[in-house]
Amino acid sequence: MTATRAAAVSCPPVATVGIIGGGQLARMTHQAAIALGVDLRTLTPRATDPAVLAGAAHHRGDHHDLEALLAFAEGCDVITLDHEHTPPALLRAVAEAGHRVRPRPDTAVFASDKSHARRALAAAGLPVPAFVEAERGDIGAVAAFARDHGWPVVLKAPTGGYDGRGVEIVTGPAALEASRLASASPRWLIEAAVPIAVELAVLVARRPSGWWTTYPVIETDQRGGICRELVLPARIPSGVAHRATSLAVSIADGIDAAGILAVELFLTPGGDLVVNEVATRPHNSGHATIDAAATSQFENHLRGVLDWPLGATDLLAPAAATVNVLAPAHPIDLRTTVPKAIEDPTVHVHLYRKEPRPGRKLGHVTCLASDPGTALTAARRAAATLIAP
Amino acid sequence: MTATRAAAVSCPPVATVGIIGGGQLARMTHQAAIALGVDLRTLTPRATDPAVLAGAAHHRGDHHDLEALLAFAEGCDVITLDHEHTPPALLRAVAEAGHRVRPRPDTAVFASDKSHARRALAAAGLPVPAFVEAERGDIGAVAAFARDHGWPVVLKAPTGGYDGRGVEIVTGPAALEASRLASASPRWLIEAAVPIAVELAVLVARRPSGWWTTYPVIETDQRGGICRELVLPARIPSGVAHRATSLAVSIADGIDAAGILAVELFLTPGGDLVVNEVATRPHNSGHATIDAAATSQFENHLRGVLDWPLGATDLLAPAAATVNVLAPAHPIDLRTTVPKAIEDPTVHVHLYRKEPRPGRKLGHVTCLASDPGTALTAARRAAATLIAP
Repeated sequence: MTATRAAAVSCPPVATVGIIGGGQLARMTHQAAIALGVDLRTLTPRATDPAVLAGAAHHRGDHHDLEALLAFAEGCDVITLDHEHTPPALLRAVAEAGHRVRPRPDTAVFASDKSHARRALAAAGLPVPAFVEAERGDIGAVAAFARDHGWPVVLKAPTGGYDGRGVEIVTGPAALEASRLASASPRWLIEAAVPIAVELAVLVARRPSGWWTTYPVIETDQRGGICRELVLPARIPSGVAHRATSLAVSIADGIDAAGILAVELFLTPGGDLVVNEVATRPHNSGHATIDAAATSQFENHLRGVLDWPLGATDLLAPAAATVNVLAPAHPIDLRTTVPKAIEDPTVHVHLYRKEPRPGRKLGHVTCLASDPGTALTAARRAAATLIAP
Repeated sequence: MTATRAAAVSCPPVATVGIIGGGQLARMTHQAAIALGVDLRTLTPRATDPAVLAGAAHHRGDHHDLEALLAFAEGCDVITLDHEHTPPALLRAVAEAGHRVRPRPDTAVFASDKSHARRALAAAGLPVPAFVEAERGDIGAVAAFARDHGWPVVLKAPTGGYDGRGVEIVTGPAALEASRLASASPRWLIEAAVPIAVELAVLVARRPSGWWTTYPVIETDQRGGICRELVLPARIPSGVAHRATSLAVSIADGIDAAGILAVELFLTPGGDLVVNEVATRPHNSGHATIDAAATSQFENHLRGVLDWPLGATDLLAPAAATVNVLAPAHPIDLRTTVPKAIEDPTVHVHLYRKEPRPGRKLGHVTCLASDPGTALTAARRAAATLIAP
C-alpha cells in the first residue's frame, strides 16, 4: 500500500450517540446512524460483537464498570441501550454525572426489572396478569398463589444476567422444585398463565419532549421464550389494534419512554388485552420496519433519544413477515446458503455475524407481500434455506 | 475502560468485497453490505472518506498504484468500483493476476472513457448524438463539425481526473479558445447539442451470468453538469419508459455489465431517445431506491457483482423524489439544520460526512409521496433547510 498523506478534514458528525452493548440491535442502529450522519459508539468488551464488525466505533469496556461507563459517556450527546444488563444504579450514576441517558434510568428499569414493571403497571390500573413475588425456594407462596389462580403458573426471573431465557411454565410444586430457572434466580416473579389467542407487540417511538408515533400492531409468534415469527400488520380486528395501540401509548407516556418502546401484549380468546412485558429499546418484533416501514425502528430510536422529529411509520407494503434465523445443531455454510435463500427476490436477509452456537439468533429474514400468508411462507422458506446443512 | 478479555470468535463474512474508492457510493454500499453479512473493504488514501467514516474496512492506498491494488485484491471475493479514476490498464492487470473484477475492466472503460463509449455504442447501432474526436487545440476540426451540426456544440473531456465537471456547452470558436476545459483536456470529444425535453436514467442490475432486472425509469434534472433532482417514476408515457428500459438492457447485455449499470438518456421534444452517458456502478440518479424501492441499488450492486440472485426493484410508494444537497458558500451547521429538515416525517436524510466546500455534494434527501410533485416539493424544502445559514 502507498503511504499517501491523508487529508484530515471531514464534516463532524451531526450527533454522537453512545450505545451500551454491541449486539445486533446496535448493529442495525449503526446502519441507520450512517444515513443521518450520526456517529454511533458502542461500549462492549468484545471487538467481535455484531455492531463492531459493522464498523460502529468500539470503546472496549464493560457495562458493570462505572469508570468505563463514565469515560464512554464523555463526548456523547446521548447514551442509549442495546440491552437490559447495565445495573440501574450505574445508569443513574452516569445520568447524575451530567450525561444524557435516554431512556432515563427510571424508564429503563421497566425493562431490566420485570417485578418493578408489574408492580408499576398494575398500580397504574393497566391490565396485567395476576402476579406475586417470592424469594427463591418459597414454594409455599407459589402454592398459595396457585390455589387462587390455578396451575400452571408462569415463573419469571425478574432480572436478567444469566443463561437461560428467564421464563418458564411451571405445572406444579414438583416441577418448581426441579426447575433450573427456579434454582438460578434469587427472586421469583410468579404470574397467572393467561389464555392466549394471539401475542401482539406495539412499537411506540417517542421523544423526551412528549411527541410520539406508533407502528402498525405486530403479531408475534413466541416459542420456547424466543420470538420466532412476526407478521404485520397483525391479523386482528381494527378495534383490537386501536385498543392495543392506546395501551402502548399510555405506557410510553406514563413511563416517559424515549426512542423505541415495545409493549408485548396477550390477546385472550375473550378479546381482552393483557400487558406482558415492555422493552425500552428497539425490539426483535420490529425488525420488519427496516424493509417494510417508511422509517425503521432503529432510525426512530436514534431520532427519539436525540429528541429529533420522528419519521413516518407507515407500512410500504400491504403485509410483511419476519422469521428469525436460529443456529441449528449442525454446521452451516452461509456462503453457500445466502445466495440460495435470496433466489426469491422478495427476501431481505439480515445477518448479525454471530458465532453459530445452536439456538442463537444469527439473523432474520423479512419478506414483503400482498398478504401476510404469502409473506410468512416466503420468509419461512428463506430462513430454512439459510440454515440448511 | 476495563481490559476485559475479548472473545475472538464470530461468524466469518458471507463474502468479502473490495471497492476501489471510499466516497458516498462506497458508504451507502457499506450500509447494504452490513445486512448481507458481507465485509466491504475500501481502497483509498484518505481515512476521512465517507465510507471509512461509516466503518467500512480501510486499506490505505492509491488507485494509481498497481502494488496497492494487487495487495488490496488479496482475500477479496470480488473487486468493484466507487469511481471511474482507476486507469483501465491497472484494472486489467488486477484481473490478469487472477482476481475477479466486476464490472470487468473492458466494461468499466465504458464509464471511464467517454470516447470509447461513444464509438462502441454508435458501432452497435444505438442512438447517440453525432460526435467527433479531436486533439486539444484542433479548433478546425470542431468548426468543421459545427458546419454540419450547428453551434453550440458540447465539449467533453473523454476521461476524468482533473477538476471541473468535464462537460461544457460551447457556443462558437471564440468560446472554445477561452474554455478552461478545452485547455485542460488533452483530447476533446465534441458532440452535437441534442434538444432535450426530459433527461432520464435507467438503472439495470445485472449478474455476470446474464440475469438482469431494471428499476422504474428515473427523471433527472441536471444543472451545471451536476444532477440536482430526481423523480421516479419518470413522468413520461409508458411507451417511452418501455423503449428507454429496452435500450438500457441491450446496453447492459452488450457490454456485459455486472452490478448496477446506469444509462443516462435524453428524450427529445420529438419523442426520440438518445443515449448520453453510462455509469458502470451505483449512480446518483438511483439514490431514491434506498428508501423507495424493495431493494436498493447498492444491495443489488453487491448481489450483481457477487453473481448472487438480484432483489426486487418495485417502488414501495406511488412516487419518490431525491434532491441533492450541495454545500453553499456560507457556513452551515448540520447539528441545527438536520432536526429542522426532518420535521416533515416523509423526509429521509442521507449525509456523507464530506467537508462542506462550496458546490460539493454533502448528501441527499428523499421523500416518498402519493404523487411526484408532492414528493419533489417536500424534498426541495428539506434540502434547502439543511443548508440554511
